[in-house]
Parts: sequence; C-alpha cells; structure tokens
Amino acid sequence: MDSITQIAFNARQAANILQTVDTAQKSRALKLIIQKLASAKEDILKANRVDKELALQQVNAGKLSQSLYKRLDLEGAGKFETMLQGVADIDLLEDPVGKVLAATKLDTGLELYRVSCPVGVLLVIFEARPEVVVNIAALALKSSNAAILKGGKESLHTCTAISNAIREALDDACKASKDEDGSQQINIPANAVQVVESREDIDGLLKQDKYIDLVIPRGSNALVKHIQWNTRIPVLGHADGLCATYVAESAQLQLAKTVVVDAKTTYPAACNSTETLLVHESHLKTDFFYELAKTLVDNKVTLKCDAASLKALQDSKETPSFVSTAGDNVQESVPEDYDTEFLDLTLAIKTVGSVEEAMEHINEHGSKHTDAIITEDEKEAKQFMAGVDAAGVYWNASTRFADGFRYGFGAEVGVSTNKTHARGPVGLEGLVIYKYQLHGNGHATANYGTGAHQKPYLHERLPVDDRESLQELSNKRQRTE
Amino acid sequence: MDSITQIAFNARQAANILQTVDTAQKSRALKLIIQKLASAKEDILKANRVDKELALQQVNAGKLSQSLYKRLDLEGAGKFETMLQGVADIDLLEDPVGKVLAATKLDTGLELYRVSCPVGVLLVIFEARPEVVVNIAALALKSSNAAILKGGKESLHTCTAISNAIREALDDACKASKDEDGSQQINIPANAVQVVESREDIDGLLKQDKYIDLVIPRGSNALVKHIQWNTRIPVLGHADGLCATYVAESAQLQLAKTVVVDAKTTYPAACNSTETLLVHESHLKTDFFYELAKTLVDNKVTLKCDAASLKALQDSKETPSFVSTAGDNVQESVPEDYDTEFLDLTLAIKTVGSVEEAMEHINEHGSKHTDAIITEDEKEAKQFMAGVDAAGVYWNASTRFADGFRYGFGAEVGVSTNKTHARGPVGLEGLVIYKYQLHGNGHATANYGTGAHQKPYLHERLPVDDRESLQELSNKRQRTE
Repeated sequence: MDSITQIAFNARQAANILQTVDTAQKSRALKLIIQKLASAKEDILKANRVDKELALQQVNAGKLSQSLYKRLDLEGAGKFETMLQGVADIDLLEDPVGKVLAATKLDTGLELYRVSCPVGVLLVIFEARPEVVVNIAALALKSSNAAILKGGKESLHTCTAISNAIREALDDACKASKDEDGSQQINIPANAVQVVESREDIDGLLKQDKYIDLVIPRGSNALVKHIQWNTRIPVLGHADGLCATYVAESAQLQLAKTVVVDAKTTYPAACNSTETLLVHESHLKTDFFYELAKTLVDNKVTLKCDAASLKALQDSKETPSFVSTAGDNVQESVPEDYDTEFLDLTLAIKTVGSVEEAMEHINEHGSKHTDAIITEDEKEAKQFMAGVDAAGVYWNASTRFADGFRYGFGAEVGVSTNKTHARGPVGLEGLVIYKYQLHGNGHATANYGTGAHQKPYLHERLPVDDRESLQELSNKRQRTE
Repeated sequence: MDSITQIAFNARQAANILQTVDTAQKSRALKLIIQKLASAKEDILKANRVDKELALQQVNAGKLSQSLYKRLDLEGAGKFETMLQGVADIDLLEDPVGKVLAATKLDTGLELYRVSCPVGVLLVIFEARPEVVVNIAALALKSSNAAILKGGKESLHTCTAISNAIREALDDACKASKDEDGSQQINIPANAVQVVESREDIDGLLKQDKYIDLVIPRGSNALVKHIQWNTRIPVLGHADGLCATYVAESAQLQLAKTVVVDAKTTYPAACNSTETLLVHESHLKTDFFYELAKTLVDNKVTLKCDAASLKALQDSKETPSFVSTAGDNVQESVPEDYDTEFLDLTLAIKTVGSVEEAMEHINEHGSKHTDAIITEDEKEAKQFMAGVDAAGVYWNASTRFADGFRYGFGAEVGVSTNKTHARGPVGLEGLVIYKYQLHGNGHATANYGTGAHQKPYLHERLPVDDRESLQELSNKRQRTE
C-alpha cells in the first residue's frame, strides 16, 4: 500500500471506530484537545513564527500578498484564545449523529428507523489560515467523521504543530482510558485527524474514492474548480458566488436602498455579496433608479449599466449631470459583466421588463448561491422564490444574510451550490447522512404479500421528534407500552 | 448549440418552469397522461410488437437472452393496465415539494424557511423494460423534476411511442389551459419528459453538468460503473449489492434458519439478497451450524465454506457424511468469494471469532448496501448497527426487506449505496433538495453584531410539522398572531 493509500485507509479505519463513539466521549475528547492546544501554545506559536518568517521572504520578493501574510498570523491579540473558544462552542452544539429522523412500524415487532450517522471520511482542503485545522478537526469529531486536512503550504509548520497537539490529545485519552473503568473510556484513534503536506498528496487523495466519502474545499474559485474537475468523490462547496438582487416594480425606494447597499458594500469580497442588480424598467422613468444609483455611488460603488439604465442616469435633471460627476463610477456594461463575480465594489446593472425576465436572467447567469427580490407584492415574491433555482431566495432582505452563523447553525462547514445532499450555508448536518436500522424478531420477506398465508405490511408511521435519539425513543416506547 | 446540449438545455428550461407548478396541476397532468396512454394503447402495443420482432431475431441468433426478451413484452395479461395503475398510485403519494423542513426567526419580521424543492433535471438510464419510462416520468413530474430518459435499445420503439403519448398529454394540457380561466391552468412543458435513443447520446449527456443535476442508472453493475466513472454529475444508485448476514453467538437456530433462508433464496438475483454468511465460531462446535447448513442445502443453496466451517461439516456425525451427500452444494471457498455478488443460490461462508471481526469483514468486503446480525444480545446488536457502515443495518431480519415498497415509500427511485444525499432504498424524497427562503422587510446585515447600534440575532426555532407546506404554515401563523 503506497503512502497516500495508507493515509486514506487509516482515516477509514478511524471512521469505522468513530461511528460507535457517543456524545459524551466526543465531548471529553474536544475538551482534552482544548487543554492540549493550550499547553502546546508556545510550540505552536514558534512554528507559526517559522511560517511567518518564510512567508515574509515571499512577501518581500513580491511572491505573496500582504493580506495572505496577515491571515497566517496566530499571534495577534486574542487570536489563539478565539481559536480555542471555537472548539468549546462546537462542543456545545447538538450532536448531529444518532437522531431518529423517521420511524415506521412495518409489522408487529418489525420497526424501521432512519437514524442520522456520520458521512465517514472527509478530505478538507483550505488555504492560508492555520486555525482552520482546529475548526475542521472539531467539526469532524463532533459529527463522528474522520478528517484528512491540507492547509496552504505557507502555514505548513503551524498546521503540523496544531495537528500534532490534537493527535497527542486523542492518543493520551485512548491510553488513559485503558487504565480506568469503562465509564470514562475514550476510544477515538489519533488517525481521526491527519494532516497532509503537499499538493501532490491531494491529487493522490482525490483518487481514493474507496476510502474518502466527501471532499470539502474552502478557498479560491480556482482551488474549488480544480478539485471538482479532478475527483469522483462528492465535493461540498461552491466555486462561484454570483448573487443578484431584483428591484421589482412595487419596491419601496428606502427599503431598496438599505438592502442593496448592505448587499453590495458590507463585505464585497464575500461570496454572498450582490454582483448584479436587476431593475424593473418602470424605475427608469421616475427618480427611483436615479436615487438608488446615487446612493450606491455615494457608497463608493462603481455601476456597470446596460444601455437603458445608463441613459436614464444621463437624462437625470441634475446640473452638472450625475453621470459626469460620478466619473468612472458610472460606466457602460459589457455582456461579460453579468457573468462576473467582481468581489469588489463593482455592480452590474440590467433593466428588465418583468419578474419572469429577472428570473430568466438569474437562472441563466447566476451561480445558484443566493438571489433576492425587493417587492411589496407578495404574489410576485412567492413567484420569484419558487422560480429562481438557488440555495437562497430572499424577499426584501440582503443577500449577505447567507451565512451559517447568521442562519443560526452555530458553525459553518461551507456554503454549497450543489443540487444534492446539502445546499446553501451548511452546518454540522451537512457532515451526516442516515442509515436504516431494521429491528425484527426473525422476520422474513416471504411472509408478506397478497398470496396465501401472506399478510400486508402495516406501514404505520411512528411519531418522532427530530431531536430525539434512538436511545431516548426506545426508552419512551418501553415506558408507554 | 449541438443537439445533445439542446436536449439538456430544453430539460433545464422545463425544470425552471416545473419549480413553480403546484400539486393540483401535477395531479391533473398525471391524470391526463393516464388518459392519453390508455387511448394510445394500440399504437404503443404496435410499437412494442416491432421491438419484439426485432428482439426475437436477436434471440434466435443467440445474441439476446430469452429473459430480456420477456421483459420487453407489454402485451402480457394486465401488464399495460398495471403500468397505468402505477401512475395513479404515484399521483396519490404526498407531494414531496414545498414542505417546510425547518423555520427560524432571525429577528422580528425576518424569518428563514428551509423548503423542499425539486433537484432539477434528472438523467435516467435503464435497461429493457419499457414500462419504466412511464414510471420514471410519473416520479419525476410528481417531484417537479424534468427527466431525460434512455431505455435499452431493444425497447426503442415502445419507449418512443410511450414518451410521445406523455408529451402529447402535456402539450394538450398547456394548449387547453390557455383557453380557460387561470384556475385550471396546467403549464408543464412537453420537454419535461424527453427520450434519447443512442448510447452516444448518453455519453454526451453525461458531460452536461451545467444543465443536468442527477443521473440515475437502473441496471447492471457494468452500466452503473460505466456511468459512475464517466460523469461529474452526482449519480444515485448502486453498482454492487454485496450483503452479509452475521449469525452471532447468542443467535437462535430457528430464527437464523428463517432469516438466512429468506435472505438467500427468495430472489437470489436481487441486490438485497445475502451473499456472505458470517458465523460465530462457537456454532461450529455444536449442531447449530450443521443444522443451518443442512437447511440451506435443502433449499438448493450452494455453500462456499472457509476451512473451519467446512471441517465442521465434514466432522458432522451423519452417515453417509453430510458433505458427501451434499456433493457440489458444499465447496471450499476461495478468497474472491467474499468479494463476489453471486446473484444466484450461492453463499460464501466465513467463520469469525467476534462481532468486531464480523464488522471488520463487512466494512472491508461489503458494498454498504444492507447487512444483518442475528443475535439475542441487544447490546451486541446495537454495536453492530452502529459500527457497520451500510445503508441498512438489520437486527434479526432478512436483508431482503431493503426495498422502497417494503419500507412504505410507495415508490422506489432506486437503491443508493452513496454516502451523501440519499442512502438505501430511495423514494420520492431522493428527487428533492431544499432551498432557503428568507422573508424580510428591508433587513440589512450591518444592523447585527456586537458593535454600537447593532443587535444580536434571535435564532428562535419556529415549530413546523414536516408535512406542512409553506402556505399552510403562513396561514396558521396569521391566524394565531
């Protein structure tokens, strides 16, 4: 077995064991990891200084950006402690594993349970920020998954120091538990968390579909696209975030200003920022569009206008004309602008004649991430939210709300523009799937049917609370029987 | 746009419209399809006779099996009517689209809904049986998906005649609705269902990941594997069904006999039949294993035994010896037998020393389909069900229960051994995903946080019944407010 296959195989072995680990064990492991990271703080920061020194040479040679260098730094005020707090926060989240999602009585003594369980082995690939190792390791353990992690090459020493501490914590816990009675047993192998170093490792791991169940790339468009095109393993993530906001005929001006300014300017580099503004043609004949455009330009936004919207601004009564005052901030658009994720304070503007036209534009040019309509017409809003094929469809709200923490998930694994498994901001539930448990008492299929001596299935739906674990459900059923 | 891209593009356009179609419209469309198929019965059977004639030439030339020829036939007693009844049954199923899966109040007037919606465009590839066109078209429409279908080349004329009837039904409905008032409107384009003819078409369509969201192959291991290896589009299905049953130390003999005979003999060619029997070593020292083996051989099963289990049978006291009487029905196994899906009355048998060893064998050699344990020990059963990584983990029940109809889904799209999206027998819910609807009133993200003039999110979980539609929920909320 070559070294790459060995890594994948080790992760699979760890994942098999992780399936049987309960919430209390995982919680103790996460607490031990916090302790171990705290006590290894100096070693980790020392490794971080090595990475920073090497990175600084790259910055000075013009080969690395100042912002990437900054993201590398773990020594900033409170940064290390925030990283540890993140693990404590994940520990407090509800365990996504072992939940009864559905239960059906097939016959007397024959009960079918759909129970959440871990996906298995995750391959997580990310760039620069070394604290992501801690975050992902904690998310993976909390959801009973094994993780193989690959950080940016600039953070190699830091990532390795961090993963060593995590693996030592798991190792110590395993050893300690062998000396104690069973009640405190922690049985999570160190191979639950592995860090790989090189890009070549990744290319090899992307072929390990026998052992790896899900790839999660967190990084640039180029990184995500490379991975999507080079593996058969399901990929959870998004390459593009091309969000649109449609200002419909009945939109209120003030509301539109608030929402569009928030959607464009609060963090232009984020994937949930609005890149395209669709405007109903009626607004070009009044001051509405002019007022909205002026507010955006006041907020330093560059507008790339189609012919109709540009003409409306040129025709506005102001002297000197708004367009001449705005200078480069108002430009004529080219077709590619409507397929561009600007990631800065640039906004493509297009005039449409109806909500149908807006929906058509979004379904053709969007990235299925998040799209919004500003309207006072409920029927139109519902039409938009049904007809736009995107993970998020918003009514009178900023596209920037598309975020796992804002949604209240407590953690975010990533944002997915996939059409299967998990969509939109993905919390811990994106790292679990389900299995069917069938509890019988010698039941055979030959006894069911329409023939002689055969009987029909009952298919009686049993009530379950979606927060209920199988153990709780079984206890409750026994009490009520 | 080449012809293949055009097909995929047409399906996407249809899918965009299908997103906005309600349950009543879909129900009327399904009823119209039944009517149209009934009135086109003679044309369809005529096409079927052409297919059969061509196929018979192949059979006579030894190029096609008699069983494939039989599967082609739509003229058998009641076959056509059963096909139509299938559509009526699907019409009666609960609509999987538009269900509120979760709801969270982020702030006053800012509510987040997770709502089920169609996956989009399905590419379904199947072999021989032409009635599958009707079944899949109905499942796709019921779940608001567009479908591109490819049947076996032997059933080409029949499939084309069927799809023509379905498309005419949709076309007629669209035209008719234009003359009426809005209340009876049906707006499902004929391109919601398209049939393609050649293998080359499929290879082209597998590249259309821009327009196609999910591929569902229903057929041989070779077909499924070919598709899995030749597309970036998610594939729902299973190549292998290598199910195991473990007879643990505390198993009851009679129960084990019932379950294993059912699991092996009721339909050996099915993917949910047991292919490997794991036996706890204790049973070799008593009559238990001998009795179980005898029952299996009495049921015409060929046993491929490992050295230990073979020796136990050779040592059994019967005269003449059981092994000599059984002849070819008891053989020594070779290592490959534990990785083989026999699909006939052959069973590989392996001796194991513990439930851990059984789990390890299954996790290494199984296909993550369905595996069972026969035991009287509840703790051991739970350990097995947690630690075996398979879509179905059964306790004292036959692996043959792994089936959408037996599970009570009312329909089966396929059986999935994937680790994401949908697992095990998949009903209509495997054809839907969700989107997040955010309903606001001019809400901007800049107002939330820990800064001055900022407020925290409420993240108040709103109660929803998982059968509830967004419309019902909204009505109820208005009544109680």
